[in-house]
Amino acid sequence: MIDLAVFGAGRIGRVHALNAAALPAVRMKYLVDPVESDERRDLAARLGAEIVAPEAVFADPSVKGVVIASSTDTHADLVLNAVAAGKAIFCEKPVSLDFSTVERVAKAVEASGVACLMAFQRRYDPDFRYVRERIASGAAGPLEHVVMHTRDPSPPPPAYVERSGGMFRDQAIHDFDMARYLLGEEIATVYAVGGCLIDPEIGAAGDIDTAMVTLTSASGRFVQMVNCRRAPFGYDQRLEALCAKEVLYIENRPQRGVTVADAGGFRASPPMNYFIERFAEAYRAEMAAFADLVETGRPPLAGIRDGLEAQRIAEAALVSMRKGMPIHIGPDWRP
Amino acid sequence: MIDLAVFGAGRIGRVHALNAAALPAVRMKYLVDPVESDERRDLAARLGAEIVAPEAVFADPSVKGVVIASSTDTHADLVLNAVAAGKAIFCEKPVSLDFSTVERVAKAVEASGVACLMAFQRRYDPDFRYVRERIASGAAGPLEHVVMHTRDPSPPPPAYVERSGGMFRDQAIHDFDMARYLLGEEIATVYAVGGCLIDPEIGAAGDIDTAMVTLTSASGRFVQMVNCRRAPFGYDQRLEALCAKEVLYIENRPQRGVTVADAGGFRASPPMNYFIERFAEAYRAEMAAFADLVETGRPPLAGIRDGLEAQRIAEAALVSMRKGMPIHIGPDWRP
Amino acid sequence: MIDLAVFGAGRIGRVHALNAAALPAVRMKYLVDPVESDERRDLAARLGAEIVAPEAVFADPSVKGVVIASSTDTHADLVLNAVAAGKAIFCEKPVSLDFSTVERVAKAVEASGVACLMAFQRRYDPDFRYVRERIASGAAGPLEHVVMHTRDPSPPPPAYVERSGGMFRDQAIHDFDMARYLLGEEIATVYAVGGCLIDPEIGAAGDIDTAMVTLTSASGRFVQMVNCRRAPFGYDQRLEALCAKEVLYIENRPQRGVTVADAGGFRASPPMNYFIERFAEAYRAEMAAFADLVETGRPPLAGIRDGLEAQRIAEAALVSMRKGMPIHIGPDWRP
Amino acid sequence: MIDLAVFGAGRIGRVHALNAAALPAVRMKYLVDPVESDERRDLAARLGAEIVAPEAVFADPSVKGVVIASSTDTHADLVLNAVAAGKAIFCEKPVSLDFSTVERVAKAVEASGVACLMAFQRRYDPDFRYVRERIASGAAGPLEHVVMHTRDPSPPPPAYVERSGGMFRDQAIHDFDMARYLLGEEIATVYAVGGCLIDPEIGAAGDIDTAMVTLTSASGRFVQMVNCRRAPFGYDQRLEALCAKEVLYIENRPQRGVTVADAGGFRASPPMNYFIERFAEAYRAEMAAFADLVETGRPPLAGIRDGLEAQRIAEAALVSMRKGMPIHIGPDWRP
Repeated sequence: MIDLAVFGAGRIGRVHALNAAALPAVRMKYLVDPVESDERRDLAARLGAEIVAPEAVFADPSVKGVVIASSTDTHADLVLNAVAAGKAIFCEKPVSLDFSTVERVAKAVEASGVACLMAFQRRYDPDFRYVRERIASGAAGPLEHVVMHTRDPSPPPPAYVERSGGMFRDQAIHDFDMARYLLGEEIATVYAVGGCLIDPEIGAAGDIDTAMVTLTSASGRFVQMVNCRRAPFGYDQRLEALCAKEVLYIENRPQRGVTVADAGGFRASPPMNYFIERFAEAYRAEMAAFADLVETGRPPLAGIRDGLEAQRIAEAALVSMRKGMPIHIGPDWRP
Repeated sequence: MIDLAVFGAGRIGRVHALNAAALPAVRMKYLVDPVESDERRDLAARLGAEIVAPEAVFADPSVKGVVIASSTDTHADLVLNAVAAGKAIFCEKPVSLDFSTVERVAKAVEASGVACLMAFQRRYDPDFRYVRERIASGAAGPLEHVVMHTRDPSPPPPAYVERSGGMFRDQAIHDFDMARYLLGEEIATVYAVGGCLIDPEIGAAGDIDTAMVTLTSASGRFVQMVNCRRAPFGYDQRLEALCAKEVLYIENRPQRGVTVADAGGFRASPPMNYFIERFAEAYRAEMAAFADLVETGRPPLAGIRDGLEAQRIAEAALVSMRKGMPIHIGPDWRP
Repeated sequence: MIDLAVFGAGRIGRVHALNAAALPAVRMKYLVDPVESDERRDLAARLGAEIVAPEAVFADPSVKGVVIASSTDTHADLVLNAVAAGKAIFCEKPVSLDFSTVERVAKAVEASGVACLMAFQRRYDPDFRYVRERIASGAAGPLEHVVMHTRDPSPPPPAYVERSGGMFRDQAIHDFDMARYLLGEEIATVYAVGGCLIDPEIGAAGDIDTAMVTLTSASGRFVQMVNCRRAPFGYDQRLEALCAKEVLYIENRPQRGVTVADAGGFRASPPMNYFIERFAEAYRAEMAAFADLVETGRPPLAGIRDGLEAQRIAEAALVSMRKGMPIHIGPDWRP
Repeated sequence: MIDLAVFGAGRIGRVHALNAAALPAVRMKYLVDPVESDERRDLAARLGAEIVAPEAVFADPSVKGVVIASSTDTHADLVLNAVAAGKAIFCEKPVSLDFSTVERVAKAVEASGVACLMAFQRRYDPDFRYVRERIASGAAGPLEHVVMHTRDPSPPPPAYVERSGGMFRDQAIHDFDMARYLLGEEIATVYAVGGCLIDPEIGAAGDIDTAMVTLTSASGRFVQMVNCRRAPFGYDQRLEALCAKEVLYIENRPQRGVTVADAGGFRASPPMNYFIERFAEAYRAEMAAFADLVETGRPPLAGIRDGLEAQRIAEAALVSMRKGMPIHIGPDWRP
């Protein structure tokens, strides 16, 4: 039996904690969340977990790993404490909104040898895995370019926007990670445009709701991304990978398998709404991989370095958008 | 240059005549239609054809073939006249609403050796041809069963219904022909149910608007058909052939290639409406085949015997529906 | 906490038992399966259930309901014992391969007032429910006819075929049930054809692998069904309901959301394979409904009468196929 | 009867000339092509047109309009000659590979008041028109951003590449035009990346085979384009317009309406191959619009100014790619 602790009783913390607890080999021993709430009480009850302060987690040698799903501003310290205590780390992105902090934390994790899984759950999604495998196996032929669409069903509330670090660090970071993952190499140039076309409140909060990004890889291949805070039909999360022999499309997953035809045509179901539902299987597989990592040491599909590099692209996109210029990046570039 | 004559300036006559005239090697010399009308005048002008009485057509040795697209009650005599005059025949289905007349005409055509193309245009449609070829070539594996859907966009006017011979002879006859064509053998048993579920006026005219038919072939394979006088979205014409290695689906052809997504889901375009549009390419290919038949003698995909056998199934379906019993048919069966 | 017992540690017993145990309010107290096996041991361990003989279940007043998923020949006695013991019943179909036994059991259940859920899980599937609701609410307009396709991915082993009662009682019974459910009335006439076109071993076992059935309802509406033991691409389970305002299509659910395009066209993923996967959500909802029935008495979507009537149609289909005649049925008809 | 003349007996000249000749009100009086060839002879015969030198066309006052589909280097002079002779102009894009020549010609056309239709045929395609109308009518809500994919089925021969002016002026110019057309305003900023990832011979000919372009409109809306000289499955021509109430998708048009299902999944047909087939209807509508313009003066959907502005974006894309910088353009910008 593997004992774990979870930080954060919010939406995504709940998903991770329940997925962990559903694994036969895992016990979720502790739940850490500073705010007393119905959510916290209910989650602890469902987990059979004790509600404790962070110190209790790090002091208990029976705890082998920690799931960090608390608010972003707590991630860096929790990772560093886990490193100090020698506990395996499952960390929600981003590590920090401050890039130099991300660099410092990444350095500490890598120096320590403590295992760390960065929660880029798309890498664990069966559709994305299938595409990755067709490319990696050579079946699809060499990858030439990638197009990605990520649109939320509707704009987030202004309070969320303010804490989020902005659309590039919050939403597009998953696409930046996927670009690196599929290309199998680093990004060399980033060009981004963005604006507030949908929701003036997002603009008032200092963020954008629409962006288009072009990435050029070190070897000269291209990636194009659309990121948006609204799609009229719901959550839009698609990818198109053009390879020499095949084009691979990841489509949206429909809510229902029912089509309704009338005089207006054939109405297929809207897609699953929202990422918690669309990536339910990915979240389960990701947590199973973390349990496996704790038990056997098998490396995760995404580690702290992947968190750092995806965020470097996000920072470059922000600079590019502000300056109206493409930004050339490398391992030493920082905003 | 091949000289032809067309009988009938109505909807389908116009399609056939213009398709024939568009062929470089064909001249449509005569148009025969007893009713003076704008339609007749306009079609003659577009064809550059002379409006004449039937006798003029059969007396002119330069006319090599006739396109019979006049009202059904004239088909039999026109075919027999064409046989007597030794002119190749393109004949709209059905040859006659009276089965013994069909038998008599078929006998005469076969005895004469005059070439005759029965206008089962689906045999010339590229989608149906593709399916037929995958089966005939063995690529799909042995054909095991067939399912067909034919639904009109909306009920025909009562006047049409009264002259039509009923849904089996008028609409389902195309499906009966396709069943024989794909199976490559004759039908042995016919079971049909039908009723008036959509439009009471059709019932008042003595016809049905909904039918389901099951066919068993001589070798024991099965066909199932739905025939209906309405689909809420337009013209519904589909086929599904289950073979040992492949299932072959003929889908509806959409009007537009535009999908519109909103909160209600993804609305794909309604299908082409109606058969004149859906089978435009088939009609062109069918007429080209007739010109080729006139010129080179190459046999058509459907001949007078196919018209007879499809109609035998239609007659059996009618008897089956009335008696509430399956009907066993063979070359000597008649209603 | 509701205490239940499950009979049968096989494939479907396992699904039902684990779904029940996953419900917060349910404890699976007992597992009954006469054969000692790894499966039985493992399932008991996962359930935390005691392995006992049937008598222990019926003698324990704390057990409020029984899940009958053992071999078909045991269903009838188990239902009668549950009736005698006053325990709510969840029963896999069919109740018995012998129709008079089904009638006898149904009478006993109805006389007793004991609640009984017949496991026609499609009624609990979200897609089928959506279709049913659009019809029942009037949104789709009056239902005029229904077309259903059920094809297994590949023929079952001969040993299964021999025990199954044949394709009508084993596979098509779900379609018979759905026909009644959507029409909201009883079937009056059944015509079936069938044969062994795919797998000679099925024929040797006295069964068919391909069937086509036409149903006419009491009010004169129509249902057409294809049932088959193989589809080259996997599990094929679709429905098409033609209503006056809408056509409702239940499509297959794809395994993956990835399309692969190459010179041969666009390859969409095969459907989920097989019913355990396709109807996973339906099985969970069905068991939740049973727990709810035990707790609150809320009636199930399908009861013992539905099991009886669906089987009556299956029996009539068998007679129809053997006699080559349509069979007229009513509440007093029996094979 | 409207008399026209066509310049160019090549592939696209043939399409335009036959479409014109098929219009009841049009006679194609002259064909101009300096090279004696079977193509030229055959086309003249099918048109019933006289083969003449350019001077004869411009000297004949009965000729009301000219269709310019000859090689690109002849366009500018032919347009200027048509202006001088007061004949309506149908001109294939681009007007010239030299931007200052395009400017000079546009000025001359505009000063003269001679009508000119620039052959951006997508504006006449029913799918693109439908999308344009849903935006223009307000049904879709305000347009926020556009994504376009244009991929040829396979790289063109090097000889073509050398004369083409490069992928931006030759292929992407249609997308640049469509961007302006849908946005209803001018482009302010162009960023392009491109490379030779598919066919080294294209690189040797000084061109690219893959490009990604981001456009920002004057009011701050965004367009993203992928342009490529190969798609493994054939011609890929799609558009996605995100509006506030609807997303509008223009899909590829399939070659066939047949889906083939086997163990590998569901294979839908590849798209129509190539633009001559895909845009057959658009070419017909475009030529009908030209005949209408000659007869009634109704303005075309695209004029010489549209040719100029689309090419300005193409020139800016080329400069952007070479400099690695976004280019800000306006009515006075030139390369």
